[in-house]
Amino acid sequence: MDFDVIVVGSGFAGSVLAERLANVLNKKVLIIEKRNHISGNMYDYEKYGFYIHKYGPHIFHTNNKEVFDYLSQFTEWIPYYHKVLANIDGKKVPLPFNLNTLYRLFPIEYAKKLEKKLIDNFGYGVKIPILKLKEKSKEIEDKDLEYLANYIYEKVFLNYTRKQWDLEPEELMGVTDRVPILISRDDRYFQDKYQVMPKEGYTKMFERMLSSKNIKIMLNTDYKEIVKIDFDEGKVYLFNNEFKGIFIYTGEIDYFFNYKYGKLPYRSLRFKFIELDKKFYLDTATENFPNEYEFTRITEFKHFYKSVNDGNINKTIIVEEYPEKYNEENEPYYPIPKKEYLEIYEKYKKEVSNLNNKFRNIKFYFVGRLAEYRYYNMDKVVERALEVFEEIKEGEKNE
Amino acid sequence: MDFDVIVVGSGFAGSVLAERLANVLNKKVLIIEKRNHISGNMYDYEKYGFYIHKYGPHIFHTNNKEVFDYLSQFTEWIPYYHKVLANIDGKKVPLPFNLNTLYRLFPIEYAKKLEKKLIDNFGYGVKIPILKLKEKSKEIEDKDLEYLANYIYEKVFLNYTRKQWDLEPEELMGVTDRVPILISRDDRYFQDKYQVMPKEGYTKMFERMLSSKNIKIMLNTDYKEIVKIDFDEGKVYLFNNEFKGIFIYTGEIDYFFNYKYGKLPYRSLRFKFIELDKKFYLDTATENFPNEYEFTRITEFKHFYKSVNDGNINKTIIVEEYPEKYNEENEPYYPIPKKEYLEIYEKYKKEVSNLNNKFRNIKFYFVGRLAEYRYYNMDKVVERALEVFEEIKEGEKNE
Ligand SMILES: Cc1cc2nc3c(=O)[nH]c(=O)nc-3n(C[C@H](O)[C@H](O)[C@H](O)COP(=O)(O)OP(=O)(O)OC[C@H]3O[C@@H](n4cnc5c(N)ncnc54)[C@H](O)[C@@H]3O)c2cc1C
Ligand SMILES: Cc1cc2nc3c(=O)[nH]c(=O)nc-3n(C[C@H](O)[C@H](O)[C@H](O)COP(=O)(O)OP(=O)(O)OC[C@H]3O[C@@H](n4cnc5c(N)ncnc54)[C@H](O)[C@@H]3O)c2cc1C
Repeated sequence: MDFDVIVVGSGFAGSVLAERLANVLNKKVLIIEKRNHISGNMYDYEKYGFYIHKYGPHIFHTNNKEVFDYLSQFTEWIPYYHKVLANIDGKKVPLPFNLNTLYRLFPIEYAKKLEKKLIDNFGYGVKIPILKLKEKSKEIEDKDLEYLANYIYEKVFLNYTRKQWDLEPEELMGVTDRVPILISRDDRYFQDKYQVMPKEGYTKMFERMLSSKNIKIMLNTDYKEIVKIDFDEGKVYLFNNEFKGIFIYTGEIDYFFNYKYGKLPYRSLRFKFIELDKKFYLDTATENFPNEYEFTRITEFKHFYKSVNDGNINKTIIVEEYPEKYNEENEPYYPIPKKEYLEIYEKYKKEVSNLNNKFRNIKFYFVGRLAEYRYYNMDKVVERALEVFEEIKEGEKNE
Repeated sequence: MDFDVIVVGSGFAGSVLAERLANVLNKKVLIIEKRNHISGNMYDYEKYGFYIHKYGPHIFHTNNKEVFDYLSQFTEWIPYYHKVLANIDGKKVPLPFNLNTLYRLFPIEYAKKLEKKLIDNFGYGVKIPILKLKEKSKEIEDKDLEYLANYIYEKVFLNYTRKQWDLEPEELMGVTDRVPILISRDDRYFQDKYQVMPKEGYTKMFERMLSSKNIKIMLNTDYKEIVKIDFDEGKVYLFNNEFKGIFIYTGEIDYFFNYKYGKLPYRSLRFKFIELDKKFYLDTATENFPNEYEFTRITEFKHFYKSVNDGNINKTIIVEEYPEKYNEENEPYYPIPKKEYLEIYEKYKKEVSNLNNKFRNIKFYFVGRLAEYRYYNMDKVVERALEVFEEIKEGEKNE
């Protein structure tokens, strides 16, 4: 068997492309994965009738019907609305910060006043990033809104961001926008149309995606152990044979280019899993701790599967997340959206476009979180992979 | 990376050899496995705090300290004594047939009489195969023992064997010897010194065995898809490159030789897994049904982990085993120990010895259940693999 496609990495980016290329274009695909399992950061395993996410809690949510329908070929779903409580001033209050949060934190008359001002100035059912609220309240010189903006900024964002990133919010592009303030009574963490969890876990879904006879999977293998990229010659060798075909890369982009422009930093996490002899430990799946402790949040996995599992077993598993620097031992979780790093990334990105000129017999595609050095939600990375697939398909037609 | 060793199959035979060769002799090993997971028939996964064995219940027991110590590098253990009840004449009685079984089945005075005769003729604490009991009782012309022997033969062995093998006991070599009659009060299914289950399941243990950087694992791949054996030339090609080194084969021997002497038959099983909303379904892990139903036995996995898990959750999983013919769709579980098949196997075995003359640059080793067409308990296959490893090590020294 000769391979038509090499895929480095078996997260969503790699697995969606492998699946499409094998099943739609009948390509022979070799997936190379350095971990001892498939599924990338979505890898989970069952314990006590629910699923534990090894690389941190993953909640699926999307507005993209195409993405949802695509994945529905490989899994059934169960409904799940994610809810998060933040520990602020000793109270557990709903996050994203919303009108209910106001009432939980402030005396009722004051909360009413703030609520009215928010609605008057921004409208109902609207999402505003905290930095925009800060700006606007200054601009309109409203002392109450200014107070509120500063309060939220400090209590919800500032210390959390420092803990999470070891940076000031100002240094990070767009990070605080990820959890905007919500001027409504909706306590859910996400408002997407599809909010679900895979019924038998993510790993089972990936197994089904990759079940084609056309797909071979090589585990425990860093691609550099079996693939040689000869940048001078413009050739790729797989097991010492010249490889011609499609090369999908979903690993770290700087590693691919042997760090020629320096290393791209990541934020990492240490996960502390704790098993407890209790039915439930938290009231909602996740609690954030912006201001206390070393960890940023605690998640209790059992909540995700509550709609199908009454939780009536005296066991639960929680995970605490301790942010840390990315080093040789931990995992590169979050690209750091800081200007200077994005500039380094741009240099690598240019190299990618050069590749396709130099390597006559290879088409390279750099896809996903690590290869594009940007944060992707799961649905977004699936969307992106499906787009890349369309691009490849079009390319083949024209040949 | 060039591979020094190809291993086909990741059950105990393949994994033990891969582990030893990688870790002791520092060989670069490629494991090729056609399933989408490692661990061979030992593959398990957790559910509700205990482990489900996908290819039928596997209980670890051995008298071999070396094997036990070897595996202990890769897992902690929990104690577990396997117990089996057979449904005979509407009663649940201990198996292997022992003195307690006598008392459960017969009126007390008659049981006492039989017990005395058994002990007088064979001794206490002794194991006798049913066919030997039959013979001996005839020989000494003891009507009571003859009755007992025939009773056990019919009620315990005959129909069970027919169901399990679709053959008469006489056609099968040594099958009824596997569960001899036990002249003692010991109700345990096994009497071995070490009777344990891997604390975190078999799959975790295999993951640890195969965690070396020297071991690469290729899943979803029948070795013939990437390896070409040129019998005429006496050469092996891996990904179209000539491969030189060690070739460990643990797949079906007839398949390796392209069925040149015909197909070796196997007995297969269909497993019907049933999930129940109960704490426990059976009193012991396994119940046999020699005479009723289409299935041979039911096993309840939860019992295996009772020493560490109080079972206090209202969920349990049982599996019914339905014997069937081996065909293209199911799995080859049991080599059939019938004379004519063993003769075919001998022909293949001769071919194996020829290989090592013809293939100058390859050393072939055929190891395990499928490659040696014989039933191995887990400990025996580990023992065998460790022996083969010693052989390889010695061979290398002399070079
Ligand atoms: C803590 C955390 C929580 C998250 N929660 C959510 C959530 O709730 N909802 C949501 O939508 N998204 C969430 N995400 C985002 C989600 O994890 C990503 O969208 C997804 O992982 C992107 O898929 P990917 O294929 O690009 O990368 P990955 O899943 O990381 O897959 C890349 C794969 O490539 C392999 N690889 C890397 N380098 C090499 C190499 N050199 N050789 C071989 N293999 C290699 C890696 O081992 C990995 O398996 C979360 C992310 C994190 C970090
Ligand atoms: C129902 C059942 C219950 C058992 N219970 C017990 C028990 O309680 N206690 C006990 O000690 N033993 C038990 N055994 C025996 C135990 O399963 C064997 O000892 C063990 O599986 C032998 O290991 P192996 O490596 O030889 O074979 P396997 O475990 O079968 O491994 C062989 C591997 O090779 C792979 N393979 C085959 N052909 C190819 C190919 N062409 N290309 C790539 N890969 C290939 C297979 O997919 C498989 O993963 C039981 C067996 C069965 C069938």
